[in-house]
Amino acid sequence: MNEFDIIERYFRFSPPSANAPVSIGDDAAIVDSRGPLAITVDTLTAGVHFPEDARPADIGHKALAVNLSDLAAMGATPRWFTLALTLPASDPDWLADFSSGLKALANRYGIRLIGGDTTRGPLSITIQAIGSAPPGGAVLRAGARPGDDIHVTGSLGDAALGLRIHRGEARLDPNLERLCLERLHAPEPRVRAGEALAPLASAMIDCSDGFAADLGHVLSASGVSAVVDFAALPFSSAVRRWLDDGGEPALPLTGGDDYELIFTAPPSAREAIATVAESLSLPVSRVGRITPEGGLKIMADGRPLVLQQRGHDHFRADGERP
Amino acid sequence: MNEFDIIERYFRFSPPSANAPVSIGDDAAIVDSRGPLAITVDTLTAGVHFPEDARPADIGHKALAVNLSDLAAMGATPRWFTLALTLPASDPDWLADFSSGLKALANRYGIRLIGGDTTRGPLSITIQAIGSAPPGGAVLRAGARPGDDIHVTGSLGDAALGLRIHRGEARLDPNLERLCLERLHAPEPRVRAGEALAPLASAMIDCSDGFAADLGHVLSASGVSAVVDFAALPFSSAVRRWLDDGGEPALPLTGGDDYELIFTAPPSAREAIATVAESLSLPVSRVGRITPEGGLKIMADGRPLVLQQRGHDHFRADGERP
Repeated sequence: MNEFDIIERYFRFSPPSANAPVSIGDDAAIVDSRGPLAITVDTLTAGVHFPEDARPADIGHKALAVNLSDLAAMGATPRWFTLALTLPASDPDWLADFSSGLKALANRYGIRLIGGDTTRGPLSITIQAIGSAPPGGAVLRAGARPGDDIHVTGSLGDAALGLRIHRGEARLDPNLERLCLERLHAPEPRVRAGEALAPLASAMIDCSDGFAADLGHVLSASGVSAVVDFAALPFSSAVRRWLDDGGEPALPLTGGDDYELIFTAPPSAREAIATVAESLSLPVSRVGRITPEGGLKIMADGRPLVLQQRGHDHFRADGERP
Repeated sequence: MNEFDIIERYFRFSPPSANAPVSIGDDAAIVDSRGPLAITVDTLTAGVHFPEDARPADIGHKALAVNLSDLAAMGATPRWFTLALTLPASDPDWLADFSSGLKALANRYGIRLIGGDTTRGPLSITIQAIGSAPPGGAVLRAGARPGDDIHVTGSLGDAALGLRIHRGEARLDPNLERLCLERLHAPEPRVRAGEALAPLASAMIDCSDGFAADLGHVLSASGVSAVVDFAALPFSSAVRRWLDDGGEPALPLTGGDDYELIFTAPPSAREAIATVAESLSLPVSRVGRITPEGGLKIMADGRPLVLQQRGHDHFRADGERP
């Protein structure tokens, strides 16, 4: 099976469309957009971003999911993506499973695979995703203002706990373990939430490095500070159980890989945000407020939590993920 | 040095512009285009696409050059690119040199770095480049018609010979060796030629897999055949010397890594093509013609050359490049 066979069999799953008349099979794809585009790129490397023994379908899902999460954080609507796939060998079973995970998520959000590159080397997947910016303009990190509320979608810490479980460093009831492992291996990007929240949010980011680190990026970009109420942070029953059993509070704040949206909005938007949350059946929690100064304070039992680190850095010796 | 420092120091070399108001430092970049876009992606992996000991500046140059070459083959004008860089460690000297090679080529063709991802792992570079399609529409592989001429820019085989020289498998005069090594390590993408030829060409492809393989792609996509005159193929003094000394004619036809443009055009375009060649000081050679059937025939001394393989396939056991 050569590289052309691989493309034909496993990756020609998006037919050409009026807006993407040329895709796989020429020197470049051609797309036609009538407005501003949001463009993002993310690489997943075996042993760093996913375990060497991860299911190929999960790898395909996650490689696209992390990019869709970035588009969601701009409030953008997914349109097209390219896939750069580096493989040690061409294994039909692996490719079929990888392709199925990728395709299922792509179809769910209507994003089309328009091109790519297949090369031989250590397993690595780079996806670049392109979306249409929302009509009112993309939601940047720099828009948070003192007095704004801070909100978070879904729940924090499940993937970080899932990684502990995967490594055999934590145990929970099997059902709670499954929830955490699912969040680790196949996170659901908050695409529809990003689109719906775009007109309401003053700043937005997706939570990939860790809640504290990613909120920190918003604060830096906006030149503001924040006070967060630990008790208001959204935790699943799995994380809550783990905390009740003496687990350290830093884990759900710094573990990362959540792919939830962290956003700020003026208090006047609270009702509209609640309506969005209800219509998407996705919890949105108000967890703090933006302040003019004082840095990032996460208050628990009346005292600020002290974190050793805010989140992941892939170039730290201890920064490796699974 | 963490990943944010790396981006700040080495990769924030394209300032925001009116058409790309958001670039590095948010969840995605925002670009605004008023017409169709050409999008391409290519990965270079150490030990496969460049030697482990290649100069970092050359790696940076080549990673962008191969993508610019794909845009050129569509007749597109380079606009924006993203960089996914996977590094074993953060080495400031390596990064500074890599960045300088990348930046020099980016500035030469006015393409802006708008985003990326920096991760830890085996050295690998994936660049996705976006260009504006030419006003008359992109030049596809599928447009070749019987009776069209086949043309090639520049010269073929220098990089393939350069690889032999790099491996110690061929020797030439030092000046000829330098020419070949330069073509191997730092190919010049034919961006301006692609733009200028777009209104004239019926089909176009860049020569990366090898002349025979890439012309083969055009023939397949167009449903036509071709006769090529070996004696009309453009060879540098280095390749000519090497052929005169008994080197096999297959090398410049199948070696690849040329990054020249192969294109077809009706005979009525000959004069206009000559004008383009002269204005760019770039030789353009007419090397054959498109026929309705008979496959691809490369005629030398009145007989068709027989090639063992047409070009590179990264998943063949013997398909490795340096």
